[in-house]
Amino acid sequence: MAFDFDLIVIGAGSGGVRCARFAAGFGAKVAVIESRYLGGTCVNVGCVPKKLLVYGAHVREELQLAQDYGWAVQAGEVDWPELIRRKNNEIERLNGVYRRLLEGSGVSLYEGHGKLLDGHRVQVNGPAGEQVISAERVLIATGGWPQVPDIPGKELATTSNEAFYLPTLPKRVLVVGGGYIAVEFASIFHGMGAKTSLSYRGDLFLRGFDEALRQQLREEFRHKGIQLAFNSHVTSIRRAQDGSLLANMADGSVHNVDCVFYATGRRPMLDDLGLENTAVTLDERGFIAVDEHYQTAEPSVLAIGDVIGRMALTPVALAEGMAVARRLYQPEAFVPVDYQNIPTAVFSLPNLATVGLTEEQAREQGLRVKIFQSRFRPMKLSFSDSPEKTLMKLVVDADTDKVLGCHMLGPEAAEIVQGLAVAIKAGATKAVFDQTLGIHPSAAEEFVTMRQSVGE
Amino acid sequence: MAFDFDLIVIGAGSGGVRCARFAAGFGAKVAVIESRYLGGTCVNVGCVPKKLLVYGAHVREELQLAQDYGWAVQAGEVDWPELIRRKNNEIERLNGVYRRLLEGSGVSLYEGHGKLLDGHRVQVNGPAGEQVISAERVLIATGGWPQVPDIPGKELATTSNEAFYLPTLPKRVLVVGGGYIAVEFASIFHGMGAKTSLSYRGDLFLRGFDEALRQQLREEFRHKGIQLAFNSHVTSIRRAQDGSLLANMADGSVHNVDCVFYATGRRPMLDDLGLENTAVTLDERGFIAVDEHYQTAEPSVLAIGDVIGRMALTPVALAEGMAVARRLYQPEAFVPVDYQNIPTAVFSLPNLATVGLTEEQAREQGLRVKIFQSRFRPMKLSFSDSPEKTLMKLVVDADTDKVLGCHMLGPEAAEIVQGLAVAIKAGATKAVFDQTLGIHPSAAEEFVTMRQSVGE
Repeated sequence: MAFDFDLIVIGAGSGGVRCARFAAGFGAKVAVIESRYLGGTCVNVGCVPKKLLVYGAHVREELQLAQDYGWAVQAGEVDWPELIRRKNNEIERLNGVYRRLLEGSGVSLYEGHGKLLDGHRVQVNGPAGEQVISAERVLIATGGWPQVPDIPGKELATTSNEAFYLPTLPKRVLVVGGGYIAVEFASIFHGMGAKTSLSYRGDLFLRGFDEALRQQLREEFRHKGIQLAFNSHVTSIRRAQDGSLLANMADGSVHNVDCVFYATGRRPMLDDLGLENTAVTLDERGFIAVDEHYQTAEPSVLAIGDVIGRMALTPVALAEGMAVARRLYQPEAFVPVDYQNIPTAVFSLPNLATVGLTEEQAREQGLRVKIFQSRFRPMKLSFSDSPEKTLMKLVVDADTDKVLGCHMLGPEAAEIVQGLAVAIKAGATKAVFDQTLGIHPSAAEEFVTMRQSVGE
Repeated sequence: MAFDFDLIVIGAGSGGVRCARFAAGFGAKVAVIESRYLGGTCVNVGCVPKKLLVYGAHVREELQLAQDYGWAVQAGEVDWPELIRRKNNEIERLNGVYRRLLEGSGVSLYEGHGKLLDGHRVQVNGPAGEQVISAERVLIATGGWPQVPDIPGKELATTSNEAFYLPTLPKRVLVVGGGYIAVEFASIFHGMGAKTSLSYRGDLFLRGFDEALRQQLREEFRHKGIQLAFNSHVTSIRRAQDGSLLANMADGSVHNVDCVFYATGRRPMLDDLGLENTAVTLDERGFIAVDEHYQTAEPSVLAIGDVIGRMALTPVALAEGMAVARRLYQPEAFVPVDYQNIPTAVFSLPNLATVGLTEEQAREQGLRVKIFQSRFRPMKLSFSDSPEKTLMKLVVDADTDKVLGCHMLGPEAAEIVQGLAVAIKAGATKAVFDQTLGIHPSAAEEFVTMRQSVGE
């Protein structure tokens, strides 16, 4: 049986493009189908624009710091529409980079919606009309999509997809959710100048991150003036007569705001994907079920990235895409993705980053741990009256001396933790941390100068 | 023979205070003699005020960036005297911290000049008069001092010691030198608003750092508008009629400036130290000669830190101080200082940081190396017309796959390289770097995503 392609990839996000390019590089004939934007969530409505807006939101603090350092500064407000315009230009530039990367690697790009007709044939509906293409294998890399709970007025909610394109900066925002997207957007809206509050059903945001950092971030948010409501949830949203929004809370209170921003989870993007025409199955959470080789229940169909819901991180999707391309088309170079000790960051203000086990996870695993912790004022704030504190924490196996986890809340946490992630991957013990000399003066040197265990 | 103390430390800088505190903690009776300021060069006229001024100098670029992000900002100039006043307050606070650390650890502090009368007795000349104290051992930790070459008008030169207290910001500065202090102060003066040029006798500044970074920093300085003259030197300085300075150059040109800043090396601080009353000898460079246990030729006298000229870095002096305290008073906990792979940073704008071997050093050692390199625009500059580029470089042993060196020029280089220094200490191979997932989007993730060797 002759197919049009060796591989059809549905979805030109981080994972899909990486797999397509590598597969083509290994000699496969590859098509990519994309209905929306090149680069996927990360480039268009995720990592990249998020970080740009966080930079923009941090300006408010930098302008205060400039004055603390003796500079004459008259600071006004941000021109949100102009910032969004510049952000859009940058995203379009990156879309073009992705297009050229695909073209340059010989991948055929189909712009339109891809729907599986069976395990080998995909119908593409696009501006150029409808066509069917076939391949020996199909990779589903359609990613995820924000999910808003089914409450009255849910259509009035804003998700990250829309927030990146808001025509004006809302004056008052209610952020709903407790994951990393919620705290990042709370930081963005607050920094830009919106009166910002956050409502989360749980006891404390950022579940799964180290407890000490979560508590410290709660303090930082409170100091900044972000109103926090935990064990709280929205029961309905309606529009007020003046056009603003009224969010009714379970405790009977009402929030009058201009934007209700929902970050309450992401679902796999399976809309009209035609899975019913295949043997592909979903797991109990609703994500596509795959084995350790990203193989679905349909022999010719694979899936990677957010749509399998393993870890919704761009570098994970990239690694999965590369692993699939190698296993299929250059098996001698295949290396399975190592899901251990994946570093990750939350670009809240201040930033938070982490690699390895939290103290709670280590104790749950029955490990005997030593905890090293340092809390200090960032040096850059020496002339500031900000109460902001940086928090660093090491979780060490008391039996093997191995460093199990590094956790940080503070400026440049992501930059600092990346190298520590390499160290942990290399099996660094606390003794190795101790033998490493500090770079002085830096924040990062605290990670190699913590001498006293604060808890065992 | 009964001594007043077990240990007298001359010099309350980083190394001296660390040794004194640890020795006292191990039960020794310790005195510290300090003639000038607690905390030494690092706290008073080195690392700490330098970094604070670099933060202040970077404000100029941050104010431009604020506008790039759409903020309405009217930026004036820096109030240098006010900045220096705030810096001085912070330094005084740190002096107090050092005083309390010493007092809290039971160390006796003598404020005055210490002069060795023999291997056990030290004369202290201070506000309280003159007295002689004795100890079983004496540790010399008097540090270093800026050195200006013996040219006509050398008394008109400003060194780092004075630069931190300049009453006004000079409008035009000639920086003389090519080491890290020269490039840091060039960045400080330029950022603060002074017309800044740099003159260095060699081909290129920062000798000993990786060639690619040195070249990139030269480009960055040029883009910023710092005038660079290499293979250049000052033959004399004189005062002009208007009170400004005229620096005569070897090529016949004359620089008319308001400040000639010299950073042409540091000598050991041995002034009136009384070494002639002991058997202490100097090495061929003029620094105190010590063996691997910091033992001088006088059996009861040891020396650490900048005065032995091994590596003039605060963390090195701290490590040496701790090593001496342990060897003398808790030998079972003694660990020798590991001088391999000491990370270090230059707080120029942009920052530069490094750990391990440069490409040149690795090749000189006859190693077969692979080079991985990445040059990119910092994400924060996405909306900027600045041509600034970040440069990252990995030097890998082609035979063992071990990462021999990590080098970076760019924002937060010091913070990023610190963790990589732990990884190198842990023996990380390039394969370990490759297995480590990136934190996206960060600059640091480039260190774990470089796939193609650019040279072998």
